[in-house]
Amino acid sequence: MKTAARLDSLGITLPSAKTPAGLYRPVLAVGDLLYLSGTGPVLADGTLLTGKVGADVDEAQAREAARLTGLQILAVLQAELGDLERVTQVVRLFGMVNCAPGFNRTPMVIDGCSELLIAVWAERGRGARSAVGMSELPFDIAVEIEATVQFTP
Amino acid sequence: MKTAARLDSLGITLPSAKTPAGLYRPVLAVGDLLYLSGTGPVLADGTLLTGKVGADVDEAQAREAARLTGLQILAVLQAELGDLERVTQVVRLFGMVNCAPGFNRTPMVIDGCSELLIAVWAERGRGARSAVGMSELPFDIAVEIEATVQFTP
Amino acid sequence: MKTAARLDSLGITLPSAKTPAGLYRPVLAVGDLLYLSGTGPVLADGTLLTGKVGADVDEAQAREAARLTGLQILAVLQAELGDLERVTQVVRLFGMVNCAPGFNRTPMVIDGCSELLIAVWAERGRGARSAVGMSELPFDIAVEIEATVQFTP
Repeated sequence: MKTAARLDSLGITLPSAKTPAGLYRPVLAVGDLLYLSGTGPVLADGTLLTGKVGADVDEAQAREAARLTGLQILAVLQAELGDLERVTQVVRLFGMVNCAPGFNRTPMVIDGCSELLIAVWAERGRGARSAVGMSELPFDIAVEIEATVQFTP
Repeated sequence: MKTAARLDSLGITLPSAKTPAGLYRPVLAVGDLLYLSGTGPVLADGTLLTGKVGADVDEAQAREAARLTGLQILAVLQAELGDLERVTQVVRLFGMVNCAPGFNRTPMVIDGCSELLIAVWAERGRGARSAVGMSELPFDIAVEIEATVQFTP
Repeated sequence: MKTAARLDSLGITLPSAKTPAGLYRPVLAVGDLLYLSGTGPVLADGTLLTGKVGADVDEAQAREAARLTGLQILAVLQAELGDLERVTQVVRLFGMVNCAPGFNRTPMVIDGCSELLIAVWAERGRGARSAVGMSELPFDIAVEIEATVQFTP
């Protein structure tokens, strides 16, 4: 239970994983890979952190949105695996920022998620990544991240 | 030939798979996974369903565009595998909607594809998914979807 | 060293791979697949080729940006593998173009990368692909491409 202890030491309590917004699964396993659906930032009251980054939402808030999205990724994995220690490697993050025109510091935003995953799993939390700007995201969420992770089946 | 019978019972006749618009393959197999290129909505006359969703194209039309894109996915798989029964699981859909500013009901749009794949394969048709808004798609198509599926080699 | 000889005959000298712009790795191996992070066009002087395609950057320049991005992909693979001959197949390119409103000839732009990879590896360089339009890319780069390749471990 090393990862669980790490979460405790970081003062992290996992949220509930939000239910899918359509006809898909939160996560699907193929061999030793888990393909996670795109997920977004859920606030403590269960609502979504929304708005255009660079206009309604500033960079620091967007980075916090990416951290909250990372917590959703952890919550999906916890529900699927029962123990986050079974994650052996974060393989890929595809980070999407709901950008107002002219905001392009997308890597700094998605670092909010990567920083969390590296705090939890050290170098196992650092994988390949893209961090790009979208014109729209579902229900105007500020950040969406799609993840692929390797695990011990 | 169970999937073929299901297509018949749904009244679905598969279209031809559109040829690639550039220097790529429609699909590539690695082990038991098929990586499909992004594909779009082809109308009965062979032209593309184009336009910005939320402006030129309304949500119901966009959902139909996602269904038409799903038919292209089936056509590519039929051409590759010969029998759609060989698909064991839809792993991942990356659904992209050509959004006019302010349209963000992207999951409802991409459900038009997911609904088709679940009608054809039941739960084998439900995988992980993202559904996001793009500023531009090739030749102004209303929807583009990239898919990964597992199959019996 | 067949691929190295091919690079010579094409007159290609590989650039240095740009260091990551955040908390991620340039590439991660899982089994016989390499997941590359999104990368962009680096000019000979080490600066990035930036601007909106269709406004600041025309289609021919954007295609060159895609070729420069392809050189970065080769540089990342060279640093990881030591010998580009170990690449057995380009599996997937996800090509993203930093589009000005109304520019949608994204496949022609990303062909600049595909053409390079096919020149280097012939049909092993031709995989699945999507080529789409983004509202913003990191630091305003004109093109970003995420790649997955198969290799001999």
